[in-house]
Amino acid sequence: MNPIVPTPRTTFRRRPERGSHDRTAVNAILDQALICHVGFNMDGQPFVLPTTHARVGERLYIHGAVGGRMLKTMRQGIPVCVTVTLLDGLVLARSAFHHSMNYRSVVILGTAREVIEEEEKRLAFSALIEQVVPGRSAQVRGANDLELKATAVLCVPIEEASVKIRTGPPIDDETDYALPHWAGVIPMELTARAPIADPRLPAGVPIPSAIARYRRPGG
Amino acid sequence: MNPIVPTPRTTFRRRPERGSHDRTAVNAILDQALICHVGFNMDGQPFVLPTTHARVGERLYIHGAVGGRMLKTMRQGIPVCVTVTLLDGLVLARSAFHHSMNYRSVVILGTAREVIEEEEKRLAFSALIEQVVPGRSAQVRGANDLELKATAVLCVPIEEASVKIRTGPPIDDETDYALPHWAGVIPMELTARAPIADPRLPAGVPIPSAIARYRRPGG
Repeated sequence: MNPIVPTPRTTFRRRPERGSHDRTAVNAILDQALICHVGFNMDGQPFVLPTTHARVGERLYIHGAVGGRMLKTMRQGIPVCVTVTLLDGLVLARSAFHHSMNYRSVVILGTAREVIEEEEKRLAFSALIEQVVPGRSAQVRGANDLELKATAVLCVPIEEASVKIRTGPPIDDETDYALPHWAGVIPMELTARAPIADPRLPAGVPIPSAIARYRRPGG
Repeated sequence: MNPIVPTPRTTFRRRPERGSHDRTAVNAILDQALICHVGFNMDGQPFVLPTTHARVGERLYIHGAVGGRMLKTMRQGIPVCVTVTLLDGLVLARSAFHHSMNYRSVVILGTAREVIEEEEKRLAFSALIEQVVPGRSAQVRGANDLELKATAVLCVPIEEASVKIRTGPPIDDETDYALPHWAGVIPMELTARAPIADPRLPAGVPIPSAIARYRRPGG
């Protein structure tokens, strides 16, 4: 595992105690998340679009079909930022000022490259489905050549990246601890409800256990 | 309520059937979400950072203290993009290709303005707390002058904006419906767990019902 080396752009200016460049922490957040937000410029205007991602080793693959404009622009090898955020809790302090959120986030800076070579594209395509439901890519009809062509996948190396994490109770001013206001954390979690079968699903098709009892890794 | 007028930058190029510029839909998504992702440029590199937001009428206030770099850069009145995404479900199709997500997202393009005037800043500051727990801003110690100065709030007008929504079951190729694979949707929801009192909370401080039974609007 190659260490992530901080750069001036990924060095923390505020609250460095919440930050790190630890690849294991980066990986854990990327692997738990279901979506990322991709930032890129077009004619000087930043755009931020949500899409799905998958990590394969030290590469992040992102689904490029989110916006025609995203792919067309990023194809040119321009700088991008991929940010993944997991919201873990609402931090309710005794003072308005110290209200906060518990969260884990990763920011990756880099240049996106379009995945062209067929073998890598198939691998990335499977990884994007495995990221959502492990084992699923082998349980469905795989992509045919036309579908593979119609899907754009972009690759961003996980090299220039940083993590920010806040955990724990509110931190109030010492003089505020005597105030009679309730303080604490409301833990938040992205949870799965009972799966809803497609109305066109024939009776008797079994539901895989990974879907029936769906949970995020680390969730 | 002023209508949102589509611009070339917010006109849908892909899947226009999923898009709209309806302000009521924009508002509902902004109001349900707890965090947004803010995109801006610094030296030609896009950055995307998570932060909290609050909607007040046709203005979006965002908490500016996320990164020193965000505030310093955005203070200059540069173009930003604020994106809010609610993940509603995992769409599992019979083919790899038609896997998707159910989601609701808003993209706002504009220029951020730093809120300087004290009255507006206090209003925005309260709104940022009310967005998380309605009623909370009146139940805690309000910001003093020093805290107000230490907190940056940015305002982005909700003028150039678009909504994208996907709902419902997977849409498979007609020939794939005969395949024996389970297909459907796993609904996802950001849910609150039981609140955890601050270890330093004295015994007997009552927990407000909005916290004890916390739920997102529309959630």
